[in-house]
Amino acid sequence: MSKKTIILFSGDYDKVMAAFVIANGAAAMDDEVTMFFTFWGLSALRKPKGTAAPGKTKTMLQKAFSTMLPKGPEKLGLSKMNFAGVGPVMMKKVMKAANVMPLSELIDTAREQGIKLIACTMSMDVMGIRAEELIDDIEYAGVATYLAEADEGNVNLFI
Amino acid sequence: MSKKTIILFSGDYDKVMAAFVIANGAAAMDDEVTMFFTFWGLSALRKPKGTAAPGKTKTMLQKAFSTMLPKGPEKLGLSKMNFAGVGPVMMKKVMKAANVMPLSELIDTAREQGIKLIACTMSMDVMGIRAEELIDDIEYAGVATYLAEADEGNVNLFI
Amino acid sequence: MSKKTIILFSGDYDKVMAAFVIANGAAAMDDEVTMFFTFWGLSALRKPKGTAAPGKTKTMLQKAFSTMLPKGPEKLGLSKMNFAGVGPVMMKKVMKAANVMPLSELIDTAREQGIKLIACTMSMDVMGIRAEELIDDIEYAGVATYLAEADEGNVNLFI
Repeated sequence: MSKKTIILFSGDYDKVMAAFVIANGAAAMDDEVTMFFTFWGLSALRKPKGTAAPGKTKTMLQKAFSTMLPKGPEKLGLSKMNFAGVGPVMMKKVMKAANVMPLSELIDTAREQGIKLIACTMSMDVMGIRAEELIDDIEYAGVATYLAEADEGNVNLFI
Repeated sequence: MSKKTIILFSGDYDKVMAAFVIANGAAAMDDEVTMFFTFWGLSALRKPKGTAAPGKTKTMLQKAFSTMLPKGPEKLGLSKMNFAGVGPVMMKKVMKAANVMPLSELIDTAREQGIKLIACTMSMDVMGIRAEELIDDIEYAGVATYLAEADEGNVNLFI
Repeated sequence: MSKKTIILFSGDYDKVMAAFVIANGAAAMDDEVTMFFTFWGLSALRKPKGTAAPGKTKTMLQKAFSTMLPKGPEKLGLSKMNFAGVGPVMMKKVMKAANVMPLSELIDTAREQGIKLIACTMSMDVMGIRAEELIDDIEYAGVATYLAEADEGNVNLFI
């Protein structure tokens, strides 16, 4: 049993999926896993559209950024061959046919396995994303917390 | 002598090149190196066009994906300044002038140095890529194998 | 006290920023930090436009590449939502409002904290970038130097 950390910087469906496949695989082998969500990666932790809290305290620019960011894992695009959203639809169909879990289930599994999900507070400020917009039962911290976790990890990835 | 692992997720010429430069450098210093090819990174292991096996058992969507994926290292685009394929041509010329090995030679060198190349089977299913389409003498495995290798590595990168 | 290394391959404002936030955070916790700048990441080390040395000894292709590469940290684009340069302007405004240091200050802080900045010489050859075009007091080395540093690191990231 050892510890793994992943910084998830990317908000691309395929990269987020890769991150959760690695994280779930490690947790299944009894590793302790911490995922640190920063910048575009925060999109993976957002609640679906209807449930977002009203944007009262955001500046206009924060509103602009947060409006354009995808709301939740099933809204993410691909890093390549996105084709205005057709790529992800295709990929999800192929994944289903290949019996690969969709991203939203991979995230549920991560939570069930006790993987620690941490939202980067500095990125939340920059992107104009507030805690109420993110899924429940996650932690909030900054770079010092990441570094403390990574110091204990034997595998530390930036995705 | 220590061990290095690289997950090659990207299929961009420049990133694949960076991965093989690091891998070959480590192998030249007597390190054990394992490269794990996943998602777009599988393109780097594909055989050139003519040699691909016929797509009989693929679904239509798998065929669509695998048709659009570049066939072999010399068909890859750049992550930036690709300019519809002009960028890679320019970069290869500059590399030649600077006496830098082209990607296909970097891959040959990796094989000669005994670097372990592993194709991710889950990604192959999703992308619709079959073993016959990939270069010979590579291994096939999933995330558990990657994690076992990474646990032994002192440097583990995601590219 | 331990050692961290970061390969900065990306030249995107947001990714370069993430790299320096992690590097500065680690240095503030008394870690030794080495950053290795390769490919597009070299842009972050370039001097602003007017101060660049004349391109006499470059080939035409090297000139083309180096002309297109951003000159210095404040000229970099975003990896997502760049919108022809509007994205970075927006992000810098939001960062200022959130009291987050702009990239150029993050780089200054890294230097003040004694973070070792190494420019990859092979990438400089390929990109047509010469030492006179990069900021002062950095080091120049190849993959062997990176690997020697990474062997001593307990956290090694590729960004």
